[in-house]
Amino acid sequence: MNRHPLNPLLSPADLSPSHPELTVIGVFNAGAVIFQGQVLLLLRVAETALKDHQIGIPLMNRHNEITIKLLNPKEDHEFDYSDSRFVAYKKANQNGRVAYLTSLSHLRVARSDDGVHFTIDETPILPEGLYENFGIEDPRITQIGDTFHIVYTSVSSRGVSVSRMTTQDFIHFERQGVILPPENKDVVLFPEKINGRYVAYHRPVPFGIGGLNIWSATSDNLTDWGHHQCIARADDFGYLNGRIGAGAPPIKTSLGWLHIFHGADAKHRYELSAFITDFNDHTLITHFLKHPLLKPEAPYELTGFFDHVVFSCGVVLKDDIVYIYYGAADSTLALAHIPMADLLGDMLPYEYID
Amino acid sequence: MNRHPLNPLLSPADLSPSHPELTVIGVFNAGAVIFQGQVLLLLRVAETALKDHQIGIPLMNRHNEITIKLLNPKEDHEFDYSDSRFVAYKKANQNGRVAYLTSLSHLRVARSDDGVHFTIDETPILPEGLYENFGIEDPRITQIGDTFHIVYTSVSSRGVSVSRMTTQDFIHFERQGVILPPENKDVVLFPEKINGRYVAYHRPVPFGIGGLNIWSATSDNLTDWGHHQCIARADDFGYLNGRIGAGAPPIKTSLGWLHIFHGADAKHRYELSAFITDFNDHTLITHFLKHPLLKPEAPYELTGFFDHVVFSCGVVLKDDIVYIYYGAADSTLALAHIPMADLLGDMLPYEYID
Repeated sequence: MNRHPLNPLLSPADLSPSHPELTVIGVFNAGAVIFQGQVLLLLRVAETALKDHQIGIPLMNRHNEITIKLLNPKEDHEFDYSDSRFVAYKKANQNGRVAYLTSLSHLRVARSDDGVHFTIDETPILPEGLYENFGIEDPRITQIGDTFHIVYTSVSSRGVSVSRMTTQDFIHFERQGVILPPENKDVVLFPEKINGRYVAYHRPVPFGIGGLNIWSATSDNLTDWGHHQCIARADDFGYLNGRIGAGAPPIKTSLGWLHIFHGADAKHRYELSAFITDFNDHTLITHFLKHPLLKPEAPYELTGFFDHVVFSCGVVLKDDIVYIYYGAADSTLALAHIPMADLLGDMLPYEYID
Repeated sequence: MNRHPLNPLLSPADLSPSHPELTVIGVFNAGAVIFQGQVLLLLRVAETALKDHQIGIPLMNRHNEITIKLLNPKEDHEFDYSDSRFVAYKKANQNGRVAYLTSLSHLRVARSDDGVHFTIDETPILPEGLYENFGIEDPRITQIGDTFHIVYTSVSSRGVSVSRMTTQDFIHFERQGVILPPENKDVVLFPEKINGRYVAYHRPVPFGIGGLNIWSATSDNLTDWGHHQCIARADDFGYLNGRIGAGAPPIKTSLGWLHIFHGADAKHRYELSAFITDFNDHTLITHFLKHPLLKPEAPYELTGFFDHVVFSCGVVLKDDIVYIYYGAADSTLALAHIPMADLLGDMLPYEYID
């Protein structure tokens, strides 16, 4: 893997906030696609409402207006403020559950001729409605026919669900509703049907039983999903006590479907790796990388809003080179690339254990 | 509500175990339906493998055979044994997650002419395959045309998911796969389409954000589900810091669709209550009961495998009387009844609060 020398490609200072009371603190975890001959990114932009001695919680209210709830750590003792990403309940029976996020994310389109220098659209794609009042995050883009399907994490006080929106021009976006109920994240759509059905990978976040594993589902219409199966467990890839989740939408290669995914250990240090699934069986892993593809090592990956994170939602294939756009430390957007032949050459046959 | 004087109707002693090494410790949470003029119950039967000084964990292996894993609380210190229902990990980064259930549940058919005296089929419906190795629980039965759809909790080391099986004769059952991924429970199907789509209620169990609330989903084929919406929150019904979940499949009444549901407080004390939804909008609650329908008060409800529980998966309507079959203290099956006119007469108009 080669990191691009201009990394990080995009930083919070490159964007204007979506609202006068907000500050951009992150541009990361972007969906990526080739559109009209350009590299188009759908950026996740995180904003906070920092105030002196107080924590400003930005929320989208039910009239789709930004409101800011103020919490004072010196007075509001019912919350735990130790994780930079959220405020948690302290009450024993709430068991560390998240009360609010400290940032509100929206999406923003960026375009580039060379895949490195981006022009960012001014118009934000803001959270909307009951299931997005804590924000919209981590978009993945899959083109099927003329339509681009964007699956994203829709976060609200009701839970972390997955929703879909569609566009044909990246100017007008149509909401298509919640496709997977809480708690779920990291959904990618395959660009073609397999055995007559659309296929998605998703990552449930169960409360009591089971690990943070990659599941698949199939669908006739991209709206309704069924036949859920657990296809890869964190343990299978050595992320013991940790988590894995799909990253970029799968790419068809000579070996099978290529999946760039993320793994994190129990201390929430994220890295990227890859596996291959069979052309005709999306539940069958045939090859994998023994060593991670990318680990946090560069300064912008090691330190940020949340440290030790490399996290990809989108990959672009051009001239047989895989361009991996990835969020670094939940703060900036970076690029790494590797020839497809090298990536496939490192793949080992995968053998199921258990 | 009138409890039946012969309560509990069924107790563990009424059943033979499904395997020589197992002991029946619970018969409870039964689906209920009128079939061939009889009341047919689909019982949840829980079995343990108690051993001297050890805990025997019954599991269904991948060859669909019962195996027993032995744990010794005096030696196996990595687990927490304080909850009678499960063994939990102690490791900090596993945060009390469930390692094993202490019992394995299967389903069993029982039939009755009078709805009170039951004959129990000898043949158990056993857990099967990867998603059921910890058991199958809490079946709900909905008749659509000639087919009875049984939605049930399929519990495995991969998580707590919801699956569907179908039958036309309650002798042959066909598995239809996982319809909702982890963590989810308490699914009921409406017996007719609303606005051209099948409708289900379900109860996600999110890890980090959101309460234990009732959601709805819709489907064209009962296999694939989408358009998830949160329709009732525990807070809305006063179960603050607690949980609610659908109970019996909805019944059409003069006021709208009647839902018998359960609520539990932060100390896991379960009770039954009811609300009504609009004929044509399954997300619109129109009426509710101000006071619970049934609270644990009888000795068999107060004490058992898990204390202070009344929990219903099935209701039968006969001569305008609502017969509520319910599990008591996760141990026995009981019956309570109320004239439909009285139940509807107690309903108050429901007003949404923000």
